[in-house]
Amino acid sequence: MERGRFITLEGGEGAGKSTQLRRLAAVLAARGIDVVATREPGGSPGAEEIRGLLVSGEPGRWDPMTELLLHLAARRDHLLRKVRPALDAGRWVLSDRFADSSVAYQGYGHGLGRDLVVRMHELAIGDFRPDLTVVLDLPVATGMARARGRGAGEDRYERMGTDFHERLRAGFLDLAAREPGRCAVVDADAPADEVEARIRAVVEARLGAAADKRFVPPR
Amino acid sequence: MERGRFITLEGGEGAGKSTQLRRLAAVLAARGIDVVATREPGGSPGAEEIRGLLVSGEPGRWDPMTELLLHLAARRDHLLRKVRPALDAGRWVLSDRFADSSVAYQGYGHGLGRDLVVRMHELAIGDFRPDLTVVLDLPVATGMARARGRGAGEDRYERMGTDFHERLRAGFLDLAAREPGRCAVVDADAPADEVEARIRAVVEARLGAAADKRFVPPR
Repeated sequence: MERGRFITLEGGEGAGKSTQLRRLAAVLAARGIDVVATREPGGSPGAEEIRGLLVSGEPGRWDPMTELLLHLAARRDHLLRKVRPALDAGRWVLSDRFADSSVAYQGYGHGLGRDLVVRMHELAIGDFRPDLTVVLDLPVATGMARARGRGAGEDRYERMGTDFHERLRAGFLDLAAREPGRCAVVDADAPADEVEARIRAVVEARLGAAADKRFVPPR
Repeated sequence: MERGRFITLEGGEGAGKSTQLRRLAAVLAARGIDVVATREPGGSPGAEEIRGLLVSGEPGRWDPMTELLLHLAARRDHLLRKVRPALDAGRWVLSDRFADSSVAYQGYGHGLGRDLVVRMHELAIGDFRPDLTVVLDLPVATGMARARGRGAGEDRYERMGTDFHERLRAGFLDLAAREPGRCAVVDADAPADEVEARIRAVVEARLGAAADKRFVPPR
């Protein structure tokens, strides 16, 4: 059986990742692809418990390295218990955030530095990478306004200040520029339908052949 | 102000660490030393929350690397929020377990290997080490029988099987042999009073001069 494909959506707060993930999952499912939609931190029962420690509470609750270690623990559990088994079974996995978020948030946003985060990731997770990473990019003020409107209670990162979010945005763009074969930046400062069309175009260009091979014609 | 001293007690399940830690704390306090007694995983509010994920549930709940990452996160929080501030304030800190437990449990017991655990510890925590580590050593069967009699509910590690605990014991002894200047092995297969006397002798030999300097004569 052919291994599935692993697609991650990345970006700052309010970039529209979860909305666009649902839409992309529906598009792929309509092509006959068996899709698993998931998220980080979380995605497996153990990782969701760790998520509870990360997304709530005061902004200074954890120091940046402690936070990175918790994210790596959650990611390892998610990868072993959900992502890899699904890919091995030929399913496509779409994840709202993955390793790039750790590099952007803890490495660039909190100042641990890209190299340290990447080294710890490699020791903890190995060299596993997504087949495609879509970075949803938009101005910080726009994203923060969208995130505030959401009011979901999991707002620890939203309360970290504009400077933090500017470093985050620059970090995601730098990451994407360093790995152009894996990453694509999509301008997310547009209506959801337009952003969806842009993401579909990227997925088609990068993984269209793989998707066609998986196509199961309707009976 | 002179920095305090950091003493850790290590060993497998049922070695008597928490009993002996209380006794040693009382001995040092009686000499006029300001003592903080703490434990791992846990010891700070954040680390105690992480502890809840580690000590309960099924033995296979986390894979060894995920478990190591959670221990490192808890240790980092404990160190920053409790251990270092106390040492900087001139207090002596006694901890029931510290970094050697990660090397013994995840490195030797679960097979991640000593080198990988030490590398991750250095990236996560730096080169911070205890001034003195007392390894309480006793036969696995004796320790397991004592631990079972305790019945505290936090029994995830106790249920891991004799082979695991034999690797653990050998791991602690190897660690102590590699750092004889920091570590002392104490035979804990004896009545509590006798083990206490042995630990007092070790502390006196290694840190007696420091303790004398801290001595505050009664008024």
